[in-house]
Amino acid sequence: MSFIQVINPNTNLSITKTIDQVVRSTITSGTKILVVCAKQGVPSIEGHFDEAVATIGVLEQIKNGEKKGIDGHIIACFGDPGLLAARELVRAPVIGIAEAAMHTATLIAKRFSIIGTLSRNLSIAKSLLQQYGFSNHCTAMHSIELPVLALTEDKSGSAREKIRQCCIKVKNKDKSGAIILGCSGMALLAQELTKELDLPVIDGVSAAVKILEGLLGLGLTTSKHVDFDFPLKKSLTGIFENLN
Amino acid sequence: MSFIQVINPNTNLSITKTIDQVVRSTITSGTKILVVCAKQGVPSIEGHFDEAVATIGVLEQIKNGEKKGIDGHIIACFGDPGLLAARELVRAPVIGIAEAAMHTATLIAKRFSIIGTLSRNLSIAKSLLQQYGFSNHCTAMHSIELPVLALTEDKSGSAREKIRQCCIKVKNKDKSGAIILGCSGMALLAQELTKELDLPVIDGVSAAVKILEGLLGLGLTTSKHVDFDFPLKKSLTGIFENLN
Amino acid sequence: MSFIQVINPNTNLSITKTIDQVVRSTITSGTKILVVCAKQGVPSIEGHFDEAVATIGVLEQIKNGEKKGIDGHIIACFGDPGLLAARELVRAPVIGIAEAAMHTATLIAKRFSIIGTLSRNLSIAKSLLQQYGFSNHCTAMHSIELPVLALTEDKSGSAREKIRQCCIKVKNKDKSGAIILGCSGMALLAQELTKELDLPVIDGVSAAVKILEGLLGLGLTTSKHVDFDFPLKKSLTGIFENLN
Amino acid sequence: MSFIQVINPNTNLSITKTIDQVVRSTITSGTKILVVCAKQGVPSIEGHFDEAVATIGVLEQIKNGEKKGIDGHIIACFGDPGLLAARELVRAPVIGIAEAAMHTATLIAKRFSIIGTLSRNLSIAKSLLQQYGFSNHCTAMHSIELPVLALTEDKSGSAREKIRQCCIKVKNKDKSGAIILGCSGMALLAQELTKELDLPVIDGVSAAVKILEGLLGLGLTTSKHVDFDFPLKKSLTGIFENLN
Amino acid sequence: MSFIQVINPNTNLSITKTIDQVVRSTITSGTKILVVCAKQGVPSIEGHFDEAVATIGVLEQIKNGEKKGIDGHIIACFGDPGLLAARELVRAPVIGIAEAAMHTATLIAKRFSIIGTLSRNLSIAKSLLQQYGFSNHCTAMHSIELPVLALTEDKSGSAREKIRQCCIKVKNKDKSGAIILGCSGMALLAQELTKELDLPVIDGVSAAVKILEGLLGLGLTTSKHVDFDFPLKKSLTGIFENLN
Amino acid sequence: MSFIQVINPNTNLSITKTIDQVVRSTITSGTKILVVCAKQGVPSIEGHFDEAVATIGVLEQIKNGEKKGIDGHIIACFGDPGLLAARELVRAPVIGIAEAAMHTATLIAKRFSIIGTLSRNLSIAKSLLQQYGFSNHCTAMHSIELPVLALTEDKSGSAREKIRQCCIKVKNKDKSGAIILGCSGMALLAQELTKELDLPVIDGVSAAVKILEGLLGLGLTTSKHVDFDFPLKKSLTGIFENLN
Repeated sequence: MSFIQVINPNTNLSITKTIDQVVRSTITSGTKILVVCAKQGVPSIEGHFDEAVATIGVLEQIKNGEKKGIDGHIIACFGDPGLLAARELVRAPVIGIAEAAMHTATLIAKRFSIIGTLSRNLSIAKSLLQQYGFSNHCTAMHSIELPVLALTEDKSGSAREKIRQCCIKVKNKDKSGAIILGCSGMALLAQELTKELDLPVIDGVSAAVKILEGLLGLGLTTSKHVDFDFPLKKSLTGIFENLN
Repeated sequence: MSFIQVINPNTNLSITKTIDQVVRSTITSGTKILVVCAKQGVPSIEGHFDEAVATIGVLEQIKNGEKKGIDGHIIACFGDPGLLAARELVRAPVIGIAEAAMHTATLIAKRFSIIGTLSRNLSIAKSLLQQYGFSNHCTAMHSIELPVLALTEDKSGSAREKIRQCCIKVKNKDKSGAIILGCSGMALLAQELTKELDLPVIDGVSAAVKILEGLLGLGLTTSKHVDFDFPLKKSLTGIFENLN
Repeated sequence: MSFIQVINPNTNLSITKTIDQVVRSTITSGTKILVVCAKQGVPSIEGHFDEAVATIGVLEQIKNGEKKGIDGHIIACFGDPGLLAARELVRAPVIGIAEAAMHTATLIAKRFSIIGTLSRNLSIAKSLLQQYGFSNHCTAMHSIELPVLALTEDKSGSAREKIRQCCIKVKNKDKSGAIILGCSGMALLAQELTKELDLPVIDGVSAAVKILEGLLGLGLTTSKHVDFDFPLKKSLTGIFENLN
Repeated sequence: MSFIQVINPNTNLSITKTIDQVVRSTITSGTKILVVCAKQGVPSIEGHFDEAVATIGVLEQIKNGEKKGIDGHIIACFGDPGLLAARELVRAPVIGIAEAAMHTATLIAKRFSIIGTLSRNLSIAKSLLQQYGFSNHCTAMHSIELPVLALTEDKSGSAREKIRQCCIKVKNKDKSGAIILGCSGMALLAQELTKELDLPVIDGVSAAVKILEGLLGLGLTTSKHVDFDFPLKKSLTGIFENLN
Repeated sequence: MSFIQVINPNTNLSITKTIDQVVRSTITSGTKILVVCAKQGVPSIEGHFDEAVATIGVLEQIKNGEKKGIDGHIIACFGDPGLLAARELVRAPVIGIAEAAMHTATLIAKRFSIIGTLSRNLSIAKSLLQQYGFSNHCTAMHSIELPVLALTEDKSGSAREKIRQCCIKVKNKDKSGAIILGCSGMALLAQELTKELDLPVIDGVSAAVKILEGLLGLGLTTSKHVDFDFPLKKSLTGIFENLN
Repeated sequence: MSFIQVINPNTNLSITKTIDQVVRSTITSGTKILVVCAKQGVPSIEGHFDEAVATIGVLEQIKNGEKKGIDGHIIACFGDPGLLAARELVRAPVIGIAEAAMHTATLIAKRFSIIGTLSRNLSIAKSLLQQYGFSNHCTAMHSIELPVLALTEDKSGSAREKIRQCCIKVKNKDKSGAIILGCSGMALLAQELTKELDLPVIDGVSAAVKILEGLLGLGLTTSKHVDFDFPLKKSLTGIFENLN
């Protein structure tokens, strides 16, 4: 039985709960699951500075997870903070949710659009498209210009409605076959929007779970040859001592 | 219980048997499997002409499969012949094994190398790298310069040894973190080479099975919006009548 | 005296007649011409599935043409179906009309726009741009959202007017120096639109004729070294026996 | 009857004679020809400075040619000096021989190699590949490290033999289907090397003649919309007065 | 004390004066400055033909400058005419103002927009973006559709206001962090627009001065190895004799 | 008088001293300098994990520097760790040394090679090339396969000799006009190697100083519009409290 850890890189419990809900409805029987958030850091991630801080929180949980016998990790923030560093740290495979959503979209549509929170986050997503190779597959990126936390505190449903209207606009204008929801805080909307729009609306959290289950099923782990080799042994000092 | 069809685009029973063996050792309990080969066409696929012919055989089996209630299809030849056409034909997701291997490799290594049969086939793989977005992730492509059937009739093990030597060379020279075996006829070698080399050696057939199981688990199907919409209704004539 | 075969990949006689008209007004004295359509297959080509079927019809006519002593072939559908396979099949040069139009446009303008039938066909044209190297030369692609056959049955002239209006819009907005008509069914409009707009409006059929005449004049044939080498000898079965 | 001018951008009569020989053996009956060289400038072109000087000589001849009723121009130096400026200056189409060779090569082979004189010239060719869109079609560039004039004063045939040996190496190593001779001074070797190697060896001069004859046959001229519009009227001073 | 020459490639004294003003307000104490314009050529530069002519004027001044002991050169026209040729001609570093503006923009913003004079000039800027590597950093290019001289004869301030309005539009729509003024004639506006918009508006002239002062401070000169090696010695004839 | 802070992202005092030496020999009179290293973290940086840790140390010093009135920052490790996050954190410009070296190299040579420590670090440099836009300008990357600390403890001079030999090989083989030393620990070698090889050997530390002095001279600061806007105010917890 494989054991997967899903890490919310921010410290927000409400988003962590959303992630937990999505993950539990996605896992295959036979997969054990642990959903955690960063123990310290930022309550939400908007921009490179937030990502830099969140990365350390991710790496701590990767390390903790390894001690618990975790077989594979998911980083559940759309900027995939700490993904490459995490791949060095352990042999267990690590998947980011932006990566997962993008990979998945290209398997069922030629072109996709991304709906994100703030423009500054979409500029990070744009770098990921380039890094992963999917720049030509992305037709357009749209931001609803709401901060991440507006999604978790959306009692009136106005954020939800903004995302829905954006999806409708994408379908009518972008010539994209699929839509990616560019924030883990949007994850619960994917299924209902898929149905309403009759077009795949992809959430990276569930996509990452399936990709990771697949890798574990294949017995594949992160390559330790050259690029993702373990960090060279060196003594970390100060606040990083717990990462030794 | 999901029902997957794996289509060997050529008519070669020996390769079909290899594929069958790999698939059966890969599927998750709860997945029903059907491995078929093209009913007519070419005994092996080396080049664009062979692919063009094989594509029709693939589409026939996609159509047959649909009648049988297939939930997802795999095209088990490294050139992914007919992949885009098949995605139009049915709503069920369709995965190619080159695509699957390349996606998988980028999730556990930054860079990969491909080992293929003939140079002309690698030139097709090069186009796929560009189409899928992975040109920058592929460090090098190496051909063993043996036709596909040399793999199925390899009683002396010399083809196998050639592949093994090529893998060793890749590990020492290419700075690639993973190796992709660029022919379904090589699929059975992936696991043992992974162990011997201590570096992921990826076979697209098993990779495709896992990706497809994942998509089915997510309830995602090929987008019918714009690019992969069903073919417009029109009457096919002549030898294509069975595709109506 | 060189002998050129122009193949309409679909079975539509009306489009074949249009192609024939364009070709006859284009050939240089000293070129013998044969215009044929696929003997079997699809009446029009919209999408990858149609292309896959049409490809076989193209290859049959390539093979037939070879027996008749054809010196060079043109594939007269804007998706260039079967182009790479055809190049393997014979030594005689083979030119696609999308390819021809794109090459020609870049020789008289820095940037061009494409006007096509349906969005799904333009998504195929986009792949060709990437394959041929002209992605950066194409400013925009516009679809009139009419199926191919609306062009051949255009008694009211409304399709023609839609194309004309689209050309005017391109000239005013796209900063493109040339326009490519993205369907052989539009071929007859190129000359009059060029005059009206005072900007080159390019039809791939006539462009392909000239390119092919040029190659024949140079004595150049498709390279049989590596990528386009003849298909390896193998016995084709079933409906493909006539391709043996 | 169309009237083509071929401009050797340098002042070297020996190269001009080579070009003249190639052109005369290439033109179709019905094409009138004028081969000229720059009236002033550099005796051979190696690098950007030489190109800058040669460009003026080219533009002078373009202007002169226009007065003589020239229908189309060819710039017969592999760096295509002055090509874009010349396209502004006249409505008649203008073709560069590097451009012509590269376009032609991609129509009969997937990939080509270039054999040039000096490394610094190949670095210019590399920019042209990027500008024209063919970077991915060029497998390798090889310099024989001889200046241009070594080709015209090759009594011993040693330059010719160096080129021949380089072609053989390309065929055995590069996986390229075609070879481009990257200097007009090599033009006469193309046909014999094509025969000896059984692989297309392309000379840009003859390729340009055929492309230009084709454009003239189509009645296509350089687009005057936006990018290649005529130079704005302004008074040139000093040594440029003859360009007014 | 380093000695910098700034070359206005056109013969316009008004633009030269603008450049002079910008340069003098930018240089560091310890830098001696010489601002010149082409002695002959075109009064303004719009398009490739104008650039070809201006290039010779630039090269003459580069050569003159060398005799005067100039340590570094700036080419002060946004198309960077003659830049690569000038780098061959002397060992002293040479910087173009388009190049300088683009480099500078990417150091303080992820993405920039360019505001230019005519569309045909922006098409040249687009090639420079590709050549320098910054295509992905440029969000959009906007032309005010006024010729260069409208900037120098802008008594009513209407050209200035057009540029200002365009900047405001960029800030509101383009998601660009910086704006590049794409003409040396706009150079004086950069500082005030930066202040008004609270977003960096970059002028290439001052940017080039600082880059060049930096290179001189590092003791770095143009590499003479391979690509920018000195022109091979050859006798220039006719109007180019002064370049010998 | 401008005040620059140079941050060594690792905690190694020997490398910090090297950087200090280089910086002091580079600054212009009128620039005040502060060279610091990370207060906590890793003693050397080899790979993504080390970079993630070092990034926090960089951000702490950026924040400290701001309190001290620093006008501009340099991140003196060749992977440019924390560069984008630092640009969000303050308005003062921030320059990375890889960025600085690459920008500088393209201004004096068409193509450059990079000499680095370990292959895994060069794979990070490869991503930077893509991010900054210089992939096409880099001919080759060579690693000496020594860890960073071998450079600081190089009493025998064997590391230095390895670098020198590698430079000689680059000059003879790569057709690169310049060499970039890909580690701040190599910075002191640049000048002497430039002299010995008669080809620019570029060290990013000094290059960054000059670029930063230039930006400060222009009065340009990091754009706060969209991408690099200040981090949204949120309360950092745990070990990150000092970053609040």
